[in-house]
Amino acid sequence: MAVKKLVLIRHGESEWNKENRFCGWTDVELSEKGNQEAIDAGKLLKSKGYQFDFAFSSVLKRAIHTLWHVLDGVEQAWLPVEKNWHLNERHYGALQGLNKAETAAKYGDDQVKLWRRGFAITPPALEKSDERYPGHDARYSDLSDAELPLTESLALTIKRVLPYWQEAIAPRIQQGERVIIAAHGNSLRALVKYLDNISDDDIIELNIPTGVPLVYEFDDNMKVIKHYYLGDEAAIAAKAAAVANQGKAK
Amino acid sequence: MAVKKLVLIRHGESEWNKENRFCGWTDVELSEKGNQEAIDAGKLLKSKGYQFDFAFSSVLKRAIHTLWHVLDGVEQAWLPVEKNWHLNERHYGALQGLNKAETAAKYGDDQVKLWRRGFAITPPALEKSDERYPGHDARYSDLSDAELPLTESLALTIKRVLPYWQEAIAPRIQQGERVIIAAHGNSLRALVKYLDNISDDDIIELNIPTGVPLVYEFDDNMKVIKHYYLGDEAAIAAKAAAVANQGKAK
Repeated sequence: MAVKKLVLIRHGESEWNKENRFCGWTDVELSEKGNQEAIDAGKLLKSKGYQFDFAFSSVLKRAIHTLWHVLDGVEQAWLPVEKNWHLNERHYGALQGLNKAETAAKYGDDQVKLWRRGFAITPPALEKSDERYPGHDARYSDLSDAELPLTESLALTIKRVLPYWQEAIAPRIQQGERVIIAAHGNSLRALVKYLDNISDDDIIELNIPTGVPLVYEFDDNMKVIKHYYLGDEAAIAAKAAAVANQGKAK
Repeated sequence: MAVKKLVLIRHGESEWNKENRFCGWTDVELSEKGNQEAIDAGKLLKSKGYQFDFAFSSVLKRAIHTLWHVLDGVEQAWLPVEKNWHLNERHYGALQGLNKAETAAKYGDDQVKLWRRGFAITPPALEKSDERYPGHDARYSDLSDAELPLTESLALTIKRVLPYWQEAIAPRIQQGERVIIAAHGNSLRALVKYLDNISDDDIIELNIPTGVPLVYEFDDNMKVIKHYYLGDEAAIAAKAAAVANQGKAK
């Protein structure tokens, strides 16, 4: 059987990335630059001859709009798309909406780095009465109380992403479908940690650049053969470094 | 149980509407005006408080992009969407790509009106070797030979739209879901003919304006209580008249 390919794409810059604020499940728009990153990714995929059979995204519009741009780019707006909350960004609890540099100035770089990158460390939890609690949002009305997060560590994010990978995504790839997933820094990091068998410590330092298609190739047993980014190497490295620096006080 | 609501929306002006060419299953872009019509429809629905549980569209991008604009307008980009070929525009056979006014000048207004509006009259059929044959397009790879049209009358369009209505759409409405359908002049006319029990003769003269939300209300037995357009009445009438005039020689 032919090599099976999966494309991952992290949404482009959002309005809050630009302002350096913790987004999490907040449904923030792509910035003009973020839209352009997604348009460019679609053109790049098209130029490399990529076509898909099925697409997944989170239920947050920065990922959905990224996917829409990419689908337009490869001339497959008609592709079936499953939008699912399991692919959402990590929930940042009571930090959502706060400026990262301000938070770092108040709590210190180290505490913020722990919250951002500590594997099993959760930021302060939301109260259910908080307007930011996802239980107040119609798109999450089918979720049980146990599923609705008040805050999440990367470990907890992985715990919700992986079952969805196993049940909804991997079977399609195994059947030979060419799949693309548009999602977020931490939900994609959860997948990458699993696919490349990365340790809890090492995943903390792994940065996925925005708007750059990341291709995984699998054999017939769904073992990863290799992975690689599409596009210019120097530009990709610069993007990953920019993400790593977001949490530092200015 | 509460009144059940369905919203139908015909895509805004496409590049070929503008050029007055027969589109059919050709996957033509919305024009700038068409995009704006869809954005306006989204704003209108939002201002009237509309929210949805499920969306349908054809697999043609002028309908899909119309839906995307509307979903952005009501702040529901996250809504589940089913894109299905049964909601495609009527297939115009070998007329696809021809300018309507030129065709009218060559064959006469009456022949073109018959092709456009004769209930059971099919335009000249495509050959399967024709590049316009949908069997050459990946999005139709799951269709059987019998399902792939070479040309369609309105009667044939209805014959494929109604089973999809019965099997996929109506059950959702009956269960209380608020549904929106973004589709085309003739696939929507097929639905409207069925819902309002319009005769074969009368449906020929019925014009659905582009980009105007058309609301149907149903009782618990899925009987239509009433239907109405949202928006300014005079503007809607002018739009419907513009559609009726498209087939005439200039």
